[in-house]
Amino acid sequence: MASNMFLYWGTGSVPCWKAMIALEEKGFGGYPNQLISFDNEENKADYVTKLNPRGQVPAFKDGDIVVNESWAICDYLERRYGNQGTQLIPSDIKEQANVLQRMYEIFNVENTVLKELAYYYMFDTTDENRDETVLKERYEMGRTELLIWEGYMQKMGSGAFIASKTFSMADVYFFPYLAFFVRLGLNLSKFPALSEYYNRVKDRASVKASWPPHWLKEPSKNNFMSHV
Amino acid sequence: MASNMFLYWGTGSVPCWKAMIALEEKGFGGYPNQLISFDNEENKADYVTKLNPRGQVPAFKDGDIVVNESWAICDYLERRYGNQGTQLIPSDIKEQANVLQRMYEIFNVENTVLKELAYYYMFDTTDENRDETVLKERYEMGRTELLIWEGYMQKMGSGAFIASKTFSMADVYFFPYLAFFVRLGLNLSKFPALSEYYNRVKDRASVKASWPPHWLKEPSKNNFMSHV
Repeated sequence: MASNMFLYWGTGSVPCWKAMIALEEKGFGGYPNQLISFDNEENKADYVTKLNPRGQVPAFKDGDIVVNESWAICDYLERRYGNQGTQLIPSDIKEQANVLQRMYEIFNVENTVLKELAYYYMFDTTDENRDETVLKERYEMGRTELLIWEGYMQKMGSGAFIASKTFSMADVYFFPYLAFFVRLGLNLSKFPALSEYYNRVKDRASVKASWPPHWLKEPSKNNFMSHV
Repeated sequence: MASNMFLYWGTGSVPCWKAMIALEEKGFGGYPNQLISFDNEENKADYVTKLNPRGQVPAFKDGDIVVNESWAICDYLERRYGNQGTQLIPSDIKEQANVLQRMYEIFNVENTVLKELAYYYMFDTTDENRDETVLKERYEMGRTELLIWEGYMQKMGSGAFIASKTFSMADVYFFPYLAFFVRLGLNLSKFPALSEYYNRVKDRASVKASWPPHWLKEPSKNNFMSHV
């Protein structure tokens, strides 16, 4: 029951958003929760570390069961509450295999686009220490990776989702990355199938209900993804 | 059926080993396979990219179903062949939640110990470019991370596994990292519960059958993990 659940989360965190979309899709909208501030390091506060000794969010409990890693929360919710809300892992074996493949293939997006480009080379590197040649390579790597997903979406066809005809766990995992890149300036006109997908999924009830609140209030200070 | 399966794999690859332990545990020992050479870049050969356009291994098919990412292969095998061989995701809700939590918590081992320390700072950094202070920090981070797992194992108790009383998917995911660190010189006497675990699991049939063949033939050229 949602009333036995509790989630600590941070706004704009891709892992938190994944867990929150899954909670909405499984019909737990309105679950008790607390937004914590990364700026004030509230993720290291006692009440968070009591649930997650690593001091990371999402930190989640369902009654006396504690699950913290975002992937584990999503996996747990679908396994325990499979018959409730949206079925996020299809029953059909072929469709299921494709969803599983895309769910974990998202590591490539995480490593190439989010980490190597956005985090390590933009957020964590000062302007003086940024080499134009390396930067171009990372933009190119990011573009190559996103074009792979553009290809998947083109193959799925208009009206479908990233890995199956219906909304699945692969969308729960993929959409928050895509939306983050759009916020950082990604020009979706270069990715027409992803553009159609983005504009459709952003209006989905579970996604709207969990949209990072500070994104609604203030634009991003960064738009470097426009070079991808 | 194992005879419809095919796996391309590389020796000493943690992701490949995970998939191979899962295949053995599910009772598919003897599945058709081909060892590819990373040195000869055989992972970029046509016959691999036909299955996995990314040119990465493991690349796996089961009849006409293709699944490539190691996590996806393990997840697929357990979902499709749940009633066969070892049950890798426990049915009991509490035990299941703990297994899921540890399965994905392994990202911390991957990021902190394997990537930040071993890959980025040892294999990919030349001796001249290595800063002693940073190196000490990374050893310390690696030690802190492995002590978390030492704590989990101590709590599970002697004879148990990393996340449950019986061997689970969390062991399939965790053991190859631990064995790789031991090969790179990790001194297990600093981690007594993990030491007992390592010595027991290394003799498990699925693990022995899939042990990286080149590890048996030649010792590692590196032992930097002894500083952790």
